[in-house]
Amino acid sequence: MKNREIMGKLLPLFLLLLGLTPGQRLSAQEMTPQATRERVRTYRLAHERTILRELVEFLSIPNLAADREAIRRNAEFLRAMLQRRGIRAEILTMGDAPPAVYGELLVPKAQHTIVFYAHYDGQPVDPRQWASAPWTPILRDAPLEQGGREIPWSAIPTPIPGEWRLYARSASDDKSPILALLVALDALRAAQIPLSVNLKFFFEGEEEAGSPHLRAILQKYADRLKAEAWILCDGPVHQTRRQQVYFGARGIVDLELTVYGPVRPLHSGHYGNWAPNPAVLLAHLLASLREADGRIRIPGFYDDVRPLTESERRALAEAPDIEAQLRHELGLAWSEGEGRSLVELLMAPALNVRGLRAGHVGETAQNAIPMEATASIDFRLVPNQTPESVRRRVEEHLRRQGFTIISHAPSLDERRRYPKLVQLTWGPGYPPARTPMDLPVSRALVHLLEEAIGAPIVKMPTLGGSIPMYLFQELLGVPVIGVPIVNHDNNQHGANENLRIQNLWDGIEIYAVLMAHLGRALEAQ
Amino acid sequence: MKNREIMGKLLPLFLLLLGLTPGQRLSAQEMTPQATRERVRTYRLAHERTILRELVEFLSIPNLAADREAIRRNAEFLRAMLQRRGIRAEILTMGDAPPAVYGELLVPKAQHTIVFYAHYDGQPVDPRQWASAPWTPILRDAPLEQGGREIPWSAIPTPIPGEWRLYARSASDDKSPILALLVALDALRAAQIPLSVNLKFFFEGEEEAGSPHLRAILQKYADRLKAEAWILCDGPVHQTRRQQVYFGARGIVDLELTVYGPVRPLHSGHYGNWAPNPAVLLAHLLASLREADGRIRIPGFYDDVRPLTESERRALAEAPDIEAQLRHELGLAWSEGEGRSLVELLMAPALNVRGLRAGHVGETAQNAIPMEATASIDFRLVPNQTPESVRRRVEEHLRRQGFTIISHAPSLDERRRYPKLVQLTWGPGYPPARTPMDLPVSRALVHLLEEAIGAPIVKMPTLGGSIPMYLFQELLGVPVIGVPIVNHDNNQHGANENLRIQNLWDGIEIYAVLMAHLGRALEAQ
Repeated sequence: MKNREIMGKLLPLFLLLLGLTPGQRLSAQEMTPQATRERVRTYRLAHERTILRELVEFLSIPNLAADREAIRRNAEFLRAMLQRRGIRAEILTMGDAPPAVYGELLVPKAQHTIVFYAHYDGQPVDPRQWASAPWTPILRDAPLEQGGREIPWSAIPTPIPGEWRLYARSASDDKSPILALLVALDALRAAQIPLSVNLKFFFEGEEEAGSPHLRAILQKYADRLKAEAWILCDGPVHQTRRQQVYFGARGIVDLELTVYGPVRPLHSGHYGNWAPNPAVLLAHLLASLREADGRIRIPGFYDDVRPLTESERRALAEAPDIEAQLRHELGLAWSEGEGRSLVELLMAPALNVRGLRAGHVGETAQNAIPMEATASIDFRLVPNQTPESVRRRVEEHLRRQGFTIISHAPSLDERRRYPKLVQLTWGPGYPPARTPMDLPVSRALVHLLEEAIGAPIVKMPTLGGSIPMYLFQELLGVPVIGVPIVNHDNNQHGANENLRIQNLWDGIEIYAVLMAHLGRALEAQ
Repeated sequence: MKNREIMGKLLPLFLLLLGLTPGQRLSAQEMTPQATRERVRTYRLAHERTILRELVEFLSIPNLAADREAIRRNAEFLRAMLQRRGIRAEILTMGDAPPAVYGELLVPKAQHTIVFYAHYDGQPVDPRQWASAPWTPILRDAPLEQGGREIPWSAIPTPIPGEWRLYARSASDDKSPILALLVALDALRAAQIPLSVNLKFFFEGEEEAGSPHLRAILQKYADRLKAEAWILCDGPVHQTRRQQVYFGARGIVDLELTVYGPVRPLHSGHYGNWAPNPAVLLAHLLASLREADGRIRIPGFYDDVRPLTESERRALAEAPDIEAQLRHELGLAWSEGEGRSLVELLMAPALNVRGLRAGHVGETAQNAIPMEATASIDFRLVPNQTPESVRRRVEEHLRRQGFTIISHAPSLDERRRYPKLVQLTWGPGYPPARTPMDLPVSRALVHLLEEAIGAPIVKMPTLGGSIPMYLFQELLGVPVIGVPIVNHDNNQHGANENLRIQNLWDGIEIYAVLMAHLGRALEAQ
């Protein structure tokens, strides 16, 4: 304990000294990105247990955006992680919203400034579906589906096999990327490799809740957040496990939708085929929104979709074809989209029914007509759709079918008056965004990573998932590019979220390369 | 306690003496059915607390057919209830199935024998939806929906207001009718009114589980169960609160149906509109089975429906029109069936979606593509449909849509091979039945009840609900007629099941009239 305290106090001073004596360090010119990766790897191999211990501690703090007290503990833990590394750190508050955590590390004479973005909050959990408690990290020697056994912390070998998995909420999405950034910095320092750019860190606390306050936080702290580009660490690498860079993200808006039957459950014998069945009404409503093959049936829904650019088309054509393997892995005999490829489909909007609830099934099934039926939906949007345009088209479509739309639980009087009542609850949502693939920073980043890895990377015009990229572009006027590191098969958002250990190891190297070489790569453009 | 023990021992002897000294009793000839009702009412008014106490004790025993130990306790409690009244009682077992409870009370010189049927098991419960514990009976001074307050047992007045409600699982379905039968007997004895028929009682213990062993029990104990007619005490009175008699019941078969998506939940952004969404597939499947207006779309489904007879048509025309009031009460702006009346619709088959489950809704909703989606359905059948004919048509319909039907959770290999897999789990079910409305016993019973009540009763060719009437007809070759007593607005099968107290009081009188006068009424035919 005592040693740690002393280290904590000495480290900033130590770093200051390093910064003041550049002559003693290797200059970035002398290092190739590949050499940097090797030095970082050497550091990691010597510190695997320490790295994992810090991650496990971070993952042990529950992190639902709705749980303000837990979010606050995460933010403070994260600030301490930054401060331990001599990064000027700050909690960016906005009323009682989950705060962002900001960090800043300026490099003398650096010409460029990069902001790394990730979020530290996690998706809601249904603990009954988890094999272990979501916030009690568990190491397994293989994926759960492949019979992975839990390995006690006392029994982990070094080096830790790359195919092992760490199970916890946010193990992938996004706490590991945050740790990878900070360990990259530790490794560069240990190897005395200087930073090529000023670094800023922006860690959001309510991304999985739809980022309702991100706009206000970015506006309030805009002066701190100036940069040449933002690099997003959210999302997975390509399904081939190859490094991927993405230039956009689909937007999102969610909708909960409830239709109504009788005010009390009715005996299905005495009233069946007389009292309106809300589960059947809901089935017809959902069928009217979407085909089973994915096509959205809402009139005009595709009108706002912007055609692809030439460089986007080329990137899609070059994307690896992994669908046969994916279908095999996921137990699928087919995929939606009438033969279009996954990458093509991600350039189009999606309507996902994420949940259905009505009455009872299984052992508690009762011969009763349910009182109501609910579906939960998320829409994924592409340029130039907006949550507002989607909402307008959905509501028009429902009205054309004779639905009366309300935004509250209906009164008895409303039930008696309107044959087809539907309660709609829209999430705030946000629009999609795409950074042009031929900007200097886009080209520099791709080139640098391909040089470091020694092979082509996967360039995705958009991520299928949603992150509020549009806000950085709109408010800060800055290009935004995603450089994700976690495995694609991470059960992100579902039960048993996990991290493949090798992805953390590789991610540390990738982020270190960006920190050490992106400045020079930009100058070369 | 001591007095009760002595009474218990003396009562059978006392009854024997009564039977041997008919000269001291009023003969049935001297009594009108209306006079019998009045004498029974006098008895009831003097014993309301005792009657209710016995019912509450009976309702306090959990009674799910699947809970064998609790069912056994119910059966023993019921046997003791019969024995206390000098009825020869017996538990009719069939392996470890929930047993039936049998009772027999023979009357010297009686020409006819009637069996009263009810069931003592109850529907499954979801306690979270109940305002009070399902097996802790609660008396309220009005229906829950009208703000009824719980009245402590110590504070109940006498007479107990008829509009008060007793809340408990099986308060209506069927424990109260069982109690009404036994109290009717108590009242007739107290009033020294002799029985006009031999009485048998058959109380089933697994009706709500679909009566899987009823056939075997009826066959095994067929000699004890010989009778001129069976009177079923299951079901509610008419929605006008008028006495109702029914001559048939719809059959039933239930079906649980699961369709599949990916083997693990997938991020709806990264895979949405590529990975098949089982909730959407289920919506389309359900929409293909039924219109929102109740019409069943399964080809040939109506082919087996037998046309109505002339007396059935007449009874339907005479049935009270209560639909405007019902819709008002249930908060419905419309009803299914394209303008056909409730009673007409009950003569037709029904497809009720009783539950839907997929992924998550509300606060636990996750942006994930669910792994599977399940619907639970019950079909109500009318002559000459059978569970087998329904099953055949549903499965043909699904196969025509390209579904591969399995009866187990699919293997990974099956998921990879078949694009549209559906797991079907059929309940055993049973066919419908209808007793002709112009048999002598049908006519005698209707005539007697109308005389006793002094007004026309409602004659229903069929009950909308299902009871295994067909078995009595098929195995015992006997007419079966329903004489229900409980309120229609009883939340039967749902949460907060309840009994309107006045229905219990009236039911005691109705059953007493049948016991005292049906023999003579039959002779008059």
